[in-house]
Amino acid sequence: MNPNIFYNSHHSPAGAFASFTLGFKGASGGLGIELAGPACQNVFIGAESTADGVFKALPFYEDKQADNQPAGGGDRWQKAVINQFNDGEITREITPACDIWRAGELEFKIYTPFLPIPDPVWVNYAHPYIGKRHTLKTTVIPAVFVELTLDNTAHPHPRKAFFGYEGNDPYSAMRRISIDNKINGVGQGRITGIFTDGTAVDCALAFSASELLVDDIAGRLPFGLGTTGLTIMTAGANEKRTWRFAVCFYRGGVVTSGKEASYLYTRLFKNIEDVARYGLENFELYKQAADDFDKVILQNQPADERRFLLSQSIKSYYGSTQLLVDEDKKEPLWIVNEGAYRMINTLDLAADHLFFEMRMNPWAVRSILEQYAEDYSYYDDVKDGSGGRFPGGISFTHDMGVMNAFSPRFKSAYELSGLTGCYSYMTQEQLVNWILCAGVYWNGTGDGHWLKNHKRIITRCLTSMLNRDGPDDAVRDGVMDMDSCMTGGGAEITTYDNVDKALGQARRSSYIAVKCWAAYLALEKMFTALGLKELAAIAAKQAEKCAATILKYKRDAGIIPAHLEEGNEAMTLSVVDGLIFPYTMGMFDDSEFINKYNDFVNALKKHFETALAGGCKFDSGAWKMSLTSDNSWPSKTFLCQSVSEKIFGLGVDRQADKAHASWLLDPENAFFAYSDQIIAGKALGSKYYPRGVTCILWV
Amino acid sequence: MNPNIFYNSHHSPAGAFASFTLGFKGASGGLGIELAGPACQNVFIGAESTADGVFKALPFYEDKQADNQPAGGGDRWQKAVINQFNDGEITREITPACDIWRAGELEFKIYTPFLPIPDPVWVNYAHPYIGKRHTLKTTVIPAVFVELTLDNTAHPHPRKAFFGYEGNDPYSAMRRISIDNKINGVGQGRITGIFTDGTAVDCALAFSASELLVDDIAGRLPFGLGTTGLTIMTAGANEKRTWRFAVCFYRGGVVTSGKEASYLYTRLFKNIEDVARYGLENFELYKQAADDFDKVILQNQPADERRFLLSQSIKSYYGSTQLLVDEDKKEPLWIVNEGAYRMINTLDLAADHLFFEMRMNPWAVRSILEQYAEDYSYYDDVKDGSGGRFPGGISFTHDMGVMNAFSPRFKSAYELSGLTGCYSYMTQEQLVNWILCAGVYWNGTGDGHWLKNHKRIITRCLTSMLNRDGPDDAVRDGVMDMDSCMTGGGAEITTYDNVDKALGQARRSSYIAVKCWAAYLALEKMFTALGLKELAAIAAKQAEKCAATILKYKRDAGIIPAHLEEGNEAMTLSVVDGLIFPYTMGMFDDSEFINKYNDFVNALKKHFETALAGGCKFDSGAWKMSLTSDNSWPSKTFLCQSVSEKIFGLGVDRQADKAHASWLLDPENAFFAYSDQIIAGKALGSKYYPRGVTCILWV
Repeated sequence: MNPNIFYNSHHSPAGAFASFTLGFKGASGGLGIELAGPACQNVFIGAESTADGVFKALPFYEDKQADNQPAGGGDRWQKAVINQFNDGEITREITPACDIWRAGELEFKIYTPFLPIPDPVWVNYAHPYIGKRHTLKTTVIPAVFVELTLDNTAHPHPRKAFFGYEGNDPYSAMRRISIDNKINGVGQGRITGIFTDGTAVDCALAFSASELLVDDIAGRLPFGLGTTGLTIMTAGANEKRTWRFAVCFYRGGVVTSGKEASYLYTRLFKNIEDVARYGLENFELYKQAADDFDKVILQNQPADERRFLLSQSIKSYYGSTQLLVDEDKKEPLWIVNEGAYRMINTLDLAADHLFFEMRMNPWAVRSILEQYAEDYSYYDDVKDGSGGRFPGGISFTHDMGVMNAFSPRFKSAYELSGLTGCYSYMTQEQLVNWILCAGVYWNGTGDGHWLKNHKRIITRCLTSMLNRDGPDDAVRDGVMDMDSCMTGGGAEITTYDNVDKALGQARRSSYIAVKCWAAYLALEKMFTALGLKELAAIAAKQAEKCAATILKYKRDAGIIPAHLEEGNEAMTLSVVDGLIFPYTMGMFDDSEFINKYNDFVNALKKHFETALAGGCKFDSGAWKMSLTSDNSWPSKTFLCQSVSEKIFGLGVDRQADKAHASWLLDPENAFFAYSDQIIAGKALGSKYYPRGVTCILWV
Repeated sequence: MNPNIFYNSHHSPAGAFASFTLGFKGASGGLGIELAGPACQNVFIGAESTADGVFKALPFYEDKQADNQPAGGGDRWQKAVINQFNDGEITREITPACDIWRAGELEFKIYTPFLPIPDPVWVNYAHPYIGKRHTLKTTVIPAVFVELTLDNTAHPHPRKAFFGYEGNDPYSAMRRISIDNKINGVGQGRITGIFTDGTAVDCALAFSASELLVDDIAGRLPFGLGTTGLTIMTAGANEKRTWRFAVCFYRGGVVTSGKEASYLYTRLFKNIEDVARYGLENFELYKQAADDFDKVILQNQPADERRFLLSQSIKSYYGSTQLLVDEDKKEPLWIVNEGAYRMINTLDLAADHLFFEMRMNPWAVRSILEQYAEDYSYYDDVKDGSGGRFPGGISFTHDMGVMNAFSPRFKSAYELSGLTGCYSYMTQEQLVNWILCAGVYWNGTGDGHWLKNHKRIITRCLTSMLNRDGPDDAVRDGVMDMDSCMTGGGAEITTYDNVDKALGQARRSSYIAVKCWAAYLALEKMFTALGLKELAAIAAKQAEKCAATILKYKRDAGIIPAHLEEGNEAMTLSVVDGLIFPYTMGMFDDSEFINKYNDFVNALKKHFETALAGGCKFDSGAWKMSLTSDNSWPSKTFLCQSVSEKIFGLGVDRQADKAHASWLLDPENAFFAYSDQIIAGKALGSKYYPRGVTCILWV
């Protein structure tokens, strides 16, 4: 595994679409809200060295501060010397909910407690995960937590420590903040800030950090024009001292267009000062929660590379989350923004985030299902390859909009007609994704009330599934044959929109077929629970047909081609992805299911082993989703790994884990924290991305 | 005058701190809110040429659009060819409330109606200026207005026209907007947008403008990921057609820190769609208002260079204005942000903006006076040059904060102790500025109620004035002798904080002395009106002493030195600035005043003429505020010009006007619209600045 420690991590509250990003050298991190990438601010974390008047800092700023001396009058402002620690002096320890930097006698710990959020619709909901019951306010606080320690026990003179940043919001100024004379901090406008409840802390602004570290800055404290804000503390002679910080975010008012919604936390916190006060009052609770979270996620003591991947993925997931309240309907909206692309609740990602949220916040899955059901479904016709047009049915849009702009109802921001590749419709893929999210949500929560309320739409989903297979039962083989007429003269694609044709084309795709099989199984189970035996039987029969068709196209070597068509020889690993859904719904514990699909699962296992041995691997040992593309997606690889380990019973491919971790740690990729389109080792898309949280399936 | 027409102008509503900036080539303008400079967006304004499928546009975008073709699938998107008009094809005509671009058969007119705003405290206040009575809602609408005309009468085929932009807000997406199917537009998030009520207008997003100008874009209309938004219209064969646009801005919620305040317009408009609807419904009213405004400002038919300077200055002033409501006190707050520096209501600028606001919105002057009186005054001690410390008195801070961050009460963002130049205290200067604003406000409005309510603070101002002259009457000579102890070991400065020592040092400054003289006269008049005869007499006596002292230091050649000290030989034009205040208060119509100060005014005139002839002029004919500095401030030059013309009765120096206009038109300066620190012809500070509105005194 790449030994690089200078990679960015998203340190994020839940649902605030905010991040205190840190780790990549230079002005590469900082406090961001709603951004497509790291905020790219200078962050100053350091302490006085034992050499008089010289300071040392972690390397998270550009080592050239602007020289804004006052013009005229001949005044010169004093400056202290700040050097960056050498790489060799710095260590880093990352866990899912912590990130610890140590350099010399300085320690800087970031805690992201990731408390499960009580269902905002039923806030007295006792959450199953951590076991403790926290209030909605406690869990949605838009803050992360920091402890900065300076161990001065070996030195007989007092030494300063500091933490601060230079914001870059285009609209508002850096400022000093004092709350009731108990909490002090520096921030930018109303949106970001760092606050401490430590005593005798100086908070000040200047044009450069070095101006604030000279001996006497009493006269500089009122200055409001400075662009850099620091909190400056002192550890006494022979004293070890720790200061606690809340790194806070706040965006007030309506933030979205199309649909008017505000952050839910604005209902509970009046402004960023209120966040800081509450965060510091409950600091120990949050610290404990971070510890508890780590214990759960790391319960199986994963090897270093998996620990890193879990930590990095979970942090990046939270950085994209956004919990809003629809101002018209007064309903909570759970949103996961699509990383650097910032599309709202992209449904093919939701089907991957599902496994994480079923552990943390199952109501979040329900929220997304309902948002799609209510505003982002549509009905289409379908077409065969020879000019025929037939009834289609319901499906769901690719997304709900982008960058805080909700699309008009029933439209995604992404999908266009007339295309055969990227930006085409994903009608079949999103239909199965919604069904699978519904099945897993209902199965995992036992929320029969929800199921009953959605009987009609689930029934429509079955009709739509059937119609995409073929216009009548006689020609149906369980596999998608009909493209949506929404594509005009184009064709449907899958979530793998820019990998290659083997994974990109939806029609007759074996990857889609296995997901259809899983969707039919989910439908069967839901219809059975609803007492709709006839529909359950139709779904069951379609699942059988689908499995039989897939087996029919199996080649002699055991390979299932990417497209279930004569002559197709393309080879992908992703065929097996869909197995994870019946597994998650507990079907693999059911002997009847096992008996029925034993051959099918074994055939997929055989395919998988053959493909992996037959070229679906990079030289580094990293897995390759499609033989004919160098574009591999770690999130989907993690899914495949889970299928391999949990369903096929194969061992952990530690070499692959190391290679995947090394991708993210590559200095060329490490700026964007977690990235999910790695083309021959380089991140070329899907940066700063939430999707890697599929690795929760390892736990 | 420089013939360059490609200079940026702020096209701004009143009080929205927003601008549709346009005129400098490249991605140099656009729709900005609360910014330090132009938004630097691509703006697309153009039409189909008569050559088939080729478009021509004004040069307000980078001529290299990103080539975001969809990856994978092999789809290629069509693009039209857009060429920029050649410089020679383009003409521009600017007036205070309009800006008209013509190129080929295209005409693009921007209207900024600048309606006087009814006193928000007394919204039924009948305003004296334009004579018509408009509602608060009508006048504070955060929009400017555009007419785009394509004259296709000579062509037998339909031709398209377009207007759009590529926003760059970091937090929100570009979007298409349709309001009740009557108004359509494109915008970014909730904050900026362009809207038209034209029929059959296509609004769409793409990665480049050229994708949206191909023949059939019906299939592209729903796309939400595009970064560029266009409105696309068609003039029929042999048809001349005009489309009307509202270019709108909106910032919801609390926008300031320190004090919580929101834009007043958010009380009257729900969101940007609401602004667009109202703006287009009342389009003709706004167009008429722009025409009316121009008629008033240009009533004396000024020469081209003055017309340009008036137009450019007034537009830049409005771009910095911000009308908020304090959310705690529910009081309106009028704010002028200090251009690129964005300091809030800098008081030394307020004393210059005064003349414009007394014509437009006298209540805005009162608002600033009261904000200072309530939250941004302070009391100090003063010091002599030899260690003595004496009682001082009230003064006012330099500003109220910066970039939407109000400073703590009684503190500016700017002032620091221990300095002798930039960022030092301006205690004496701001004290006279507040007194002069008060005097001009009361005198101009006859608001005796206000005067009575402020009797106490005005009395304190006199005490403070006296104490800065000297600790007792015996040593007082009407001129500032004592620096504020707020300066620590430093010294007070004037508004000319980085010109040179001649203008920068406040103590014994003749520039400050003339302003003190004016302030004593204002105090005398106010005390008389309040029936406080004794105080009026003290003020009158101080004014006399001050004038006598200034005369005493007059050198043989008639020069009044920059500092009223033996041996000082520095020469400035700005000595005469302060004369404008008694002139504005009508004192020059009073024969008693004329008799009393005839010698004094003549001495200042003699000084002025001698200085102008003796080196206070650049080679270009531009005036120089201080002989020993190349840093000249047009706003203050305009003041001096007004004194020269209105008080000294000297003629218009047209060569100077041409040189000042040429400064702003210089391609190196023209990006920042109006700039106010021109160092040897180059703008090096005070960019995108409101202060040039002193030229209203020419009218």
